[in-house]
Amino acid sequence: MPKIVDHEKQKQLLAEATWRIIRRHGMEQASVRHIAEEAGISVGSLRHYFATQSELFAYSMQLVSERVDARISSLPFSGPPLEDMKKVLCQLLPMDEESRSEMEVWIAFMTKALADPSLKALGDQVFEKMRLGIHSIIESLVQLELAAVDLNVDLETARLHSLIDGLAMHAVIRPDSLSPERLEELVTLHLKSLCKL
Amino acid sequence: MPKIVDHEKQKQLLAEATWRIIRRHGMEQASVRHIAEEAGISVGSLRHYFATQSELFAYSMQLVSERVDARISSLPFSGPPLEDMKKVLCQLLPMDEESRSEMEVWIAFMTKALADPSLKALGDQVFEKMRLGIHSIIESLVQLELAAVDLNVDLETARLHSLIDGLAMHAVIRPDSLSPERLEELVTLHLKSLCKL
Repeated sequence: MPKIVDHEKQKQLLAEATWRIIRRHGMEQASVRHIAEEAGISVGSLRHYFATQSELFAYSMQLVSERVDARISSLPFSGPPLEDMKKVLCQLLPMDEESRSEMEVWIAFMTKALADPSLKALGDQVFEKMRLGIHSIIESLVQLELAAVDLNVDLETARLHSLIDGLAMHAVIRPDSLSPERLEELVTLHLKSLCKL
Repeated sequence: MPKIVDHEKQKQLLAEATWRIIRRHGMEQASVRHIAEEAGISVGSLRHYFATQSELFAYSMQLVSERVDARISSLPFSGPPLEDMKKVLCQLLPMDEESRSEMEVWIAFMTKALADPSLKALGDQVFEKMRLGIHSIIESLVQLELAAVDLNVDLETARLHSLIDGLAMHAVIRPDSLSPERLEELVTLHLKSLCKL
């Protein structure tokens, strides 16, 4: 089915062109015309894949989330539990140029979603998926009897979730202040602080 | 000097009109024309106060930061140290409609700053001021001998700073999940986790 593959591939190329425009010029410049130009196709051809700018944005936003999922699914889990948990959490942070680009675009979409209901539902869905993933990490700490005895699973889920998104945001807006090594160190510190002494 | 006062007052009204447009319609719609319309003045009159959109945005962004500073300066510090620290940190979170509105706008400006050098310098300046404020809270914990013995001031500054901004962002994008009481509870939990048992 080469045609279907090509269709999906072309949509991804358009999403990536959208990311580049947003990163380089900001959301205000991410018009359908600019994106088509960046992708090297006509506006008419772009409309063949995405009837509206909203559809293109929703797809581009979804693709960020799918890339993160794919990276987490392909992680080799083998080390001690805290090490594996750290690996998962680091996939939610800008650790290299690829993930930095994704997260920069994600923040732009989340900001746009505040005033754009068509993106809000998707944003909420990804937020909830991430919250559940972090919840299961905290629960694992309890089940493996690593957690401090008085650990409150719901509060600690909210704290870790906010910390991860705050670190991602800081690493995007101030890359110099948070290197990948520093991010890893902070995630490790936090996980250890949740554990028994 | 009623004229100077009026001039400053009018600039604040224009900044607040900018905030409303950004909150309601997003940054893409925050054109000088829309903002003038929202403020009920002509584009020509707006240009009398701000020659360019960049100047208006920089002023509007600066005003958010000044409002937060003013609230912190007017706090009554009287309680136990952890209580006073919590009070300061909560001023950096959306605890009511006013601060929610400020932080929603702040996030939009920080996102725009990623692709707009004219706003980036101001964003960096406020980031650094906030980092220093949080650093002095962590140092106070050490000086008051409340901190756990192995506390690393720099790492804990970065962790608390990211946590506060992550909580602010989550409370803005998912207000239902983080009530003011919940935010206070999380800040208290974190401060306590930094202290001796």
